[in-house]
Amino acid sequence: MSTLFKDVLVLDGGMERALSGHILVSNGRIESVLEKGSPLPQADETIEGNGRKAVLPGFVNGHTHAAMSLLRGLGEELPLMEWLKEKIWPIEAKLTPQIIRVGTELALLEMARTGTTCFADMYFEMDQVAEAAVAMGIRAGLCRGLIGNDDKRLEEGLALAEKWHGREGLITVQLGPHAPYTVPFDYLQKIVAIANGKNMGLHIHLLETEWELGYFKDELKMSPEDWLKDSGILELSRVILAHGVWMNPEWALGTNKIDFSNVTIAHNPGSNLKLASGIFAVDKWLDAGVAVSLGTDGASSNNRLDMWQEMRCAALTQKGVYRDPLLGKASDILRMATYEGALSLGFTDKGMLREGWAADFVLVGLDAPHYVGADEENLSCFIVYAGSSEDVEGTMTAGKWIYKNGIYPTSDKAGIIESARAARKKLLE
Amino acid sequence: MSTLFKDVLVLDGGMERALSGHILVSNGRIESVLEKGSPLPQADETIEGNGRKAVLPGFVNGHTHAAMSLLRGLGEELPLMEWLKEKIWPIEAKLTPQIIRVGTELALLEMARTGTTCFADMYFEMDQVAEAAVAMGIRAGLCRGLIGNDDKRLEEGLALAEKWHGREGLITVQLGPHAPYTVPFDYLQKIVAIANGKNMGLHIHLLETEWELGYFKDELKMSPEDWLKDSGILELSRVILAHGVWMNPEWALGTNKIDFSNVTIAHNPGSNLKLASGIFAVDKWLDAGVAVSLGTDGASSNNRLDMWQEMRCAALTQKGVYRDPLLGKASDILRMATYEGALSLGFTDKGMLREGWAADFVLVGLDAPHYVGADEENLSCFIVYAGSSEDVEGTMTAGKWIYKNGIYPTSDKAGIIESARAARKKLLE
Repeated sequence: MSTLFKDVLVLDGGMERALSGHILVSNGRIESVLEKGSPLPQADETIEGNGRKAVLPGFVNGHTHAAMSLLRGLGEELPLMEWLKEKIWPIEAKLTPQIIRVGTELALLEMARTGTTCFADMYFEMDQVAEAAVAMGIRAGLCRGLIGNDDKRLEEGLALAEKWHGREGLITVQLGPHAPYTVPFDYLQKIVAIANGKNMGLHIHLLETEWELGYFKDELKMSPEDWLKDSGILELSRVILAHGVWMNPEWALGTNKIDFSNVTIAHNPGSNLKLASGIFAVDKWLDAGVAVSLGTDGASSNNRLDMWQEMRCAALTQKGVYRDPLLGKASDILRMATYEGALSLGFTDKGMLREGWAADFVLVGLDAPHYVGADEENLSCFIVYAGSSEDVEGTMTAGKWIYKNGIYPTSDKAGIIESARAARKKLLE
Repeated sequence: MSTLFKDVLVLDGGMERALSGHILVSNGRIESVLEKGSPLPQADETIEGNGRKAVLPGFVNGHTHAAMSLLRGLGEELPLMEWLKEKIWPIEAKLTPQIIRVGTELALLEMARTGTTCFADMYFEMDQVAEAAVAMGIRAGLCRGLIGNDDKRLEEGLALAEKWHGREGLITVQLGPHAPYTVPFDYLQKIVAIANGKNMGLHIHLLETEWELGYFKDELKMSPEDWLKDSGILELSRVILAHGVWMNPEWALGTNKIDFSNVTIAHNPGSNLKLASGIFAVDKWLDAGVAVSLGTDGASSNNRLDMWQEMRCAALTQKGVYRDPLLGKASDILRMATYEGALSLGFTDKGMLREGWAADFVLVGLDAPHYVGADEENLSCFIVYAGSSEDVEGTMTAGKWIYKNGIYPTSDKAGIIESARAARKKLLE
């Protein structure tokens, strides 16, 4: 199967400038990126761009809990702990594998519709998530959330890796200790040692809320810096620190700086704002040379799984809160929303439009009124500041369409939505 | 012409709770709002909701410069004054009536597509804006921007009112002194006196940036509070103060409080963040009893004219920046985006779904994955936190569709976009 994207704007890896030309996809990979005027190759399918469509790397949702799409809108406008204790946790206790499956499928519909080709997920009953992802044909980096010093959960996490890591080139598996305040420090060290021995990545929440700073001081009786160093986390090959709102970018600077070489901080601006957790200083971390990805968090605290919303929110919040229009640059935000997320999950040839790399794309229509004036030079700014998911005409993962012009070729949209409505109704009984 | 919206969720005026039922529209007005189970009236057109569509009051963009849609994306990521001086002003100097017409038409396409039924506009060559609005059938509150002590411009502003105020029930006209730093104080007093004599509304930028506080102190040598009181502005029947980022909500409190009864502050969160102007404290003003509307500002600094983006941005920014999830409530944000904007322009029977009021609606499809779980109780939260313009199935002003399922019944979409591309190209030559 091959697809030719003919006469399109191709947003390149640096995200600074687009190229007018063509992309040939073959066997799930980018066979060639051709400048305008090049001889056109043959393909099974041709997308006629007429210069009015753009191809971007598919979005990578750097941190989410997909199945929480079933919990969207529960307990709105409540303080965080009240929201968790009274609304979310009692319902999560009622989740079954079947319900997690349909919640994940619901989330995947929204992701495919909005241009996401890969997502990082931490939850439980993760076989369901893996099966749903492979069934749709979307990529995922998965981890079973680990809480307490619970060997059974850890074994589930390891079994997930055993069964799914590398499956069809779509799935990677990380170990997923939930957070410093839910996993005892010595047990975390054990998890990290296992990850190290198996060369696995790790995905953990860190300093989402200011409250957690107090937990480090009063309960763990160590600084977050020491926790990072002494846990062994920094010696792993890949680590995702989700949120990091209250991490201090100065940790990455100076003579005693922490080595964040293998770390990606997954920034979740929508959720952080909505839950009033605080503002993550994107540009300070980027300036310190630390990798940052972009995620939505669960739909229960966002409330979308729409990376366009997240890009705009990230860019505008940085400029506005820090009073500097030069922050939150579109090119940085786009790289965070694509390449950095993929890399954080161990996907090393995804998230840029380069020959030989994976054919994970968003096809964007530029015929809408808000794209008048978009060209090679300014496309990244149009996408981040003026674009939205209504512009997505297709989403392709590994050379296969998972969404195209209202159709989900690999999903039963109506059936999933019907099942999701029934599952939600049952949960709320 | 009558339209029946059958079996839909109707978001009521208080925006707290939706009603399951039907709406009958006749002669541009809401004939009746019927509860589910009521006998169904006959109508020329029936929209079958099947319980999976919502009808909201049409959005009112409380402050914009529509024709600036042609300037979208010019000079991104520059500091404000550099952006204005090097990019915006030189191009604005080249604008002709014809170019302003096509820029406005381009903006109206985007507004109709995203559910806006009315907008507040300040620019120049405003006959073009009025003609474009009436041609489409969208409502507008218009003012000719006044700069300096220029009687010619003032005459144009008055002629606009003479010619257009009240036209087809679609247009109101305000006087539009641009800002305290562009109109001499004594000339402003003259404008206000004329507005008072003619019972006209007034629309002015106030304290968008922190720099303006220095201008009051150093150049005007008066406080903004004294400027408000001594200008006569507060005695007018209706006043829109656009932005107001650096206004102090304490002005509205205490024994010496300023009387803001006839004032609406038009909040523009996207533009304020993007230009790094600061954060407007929505809830403090609402708590002080001052009316606040919601606007996009021009597309050159937003970069959308999409009220869904603006609602989400407003709600999330308030919660996140002030660290309180109880701020920026969906019901408040929706009222700002509809009723308050209409009222600020002198439209007193628009922006709520009440019998006898104008049939200005957004028709929203609830079949998308992100609406699973939406019901009468939580619809306003789903709309503000999870909704987006991709959900708009139709936009109706005064009982007539201006957008429906991809079609713009009163506009030549392709022709406008083609003309807009040509106009932009010419501007940038």
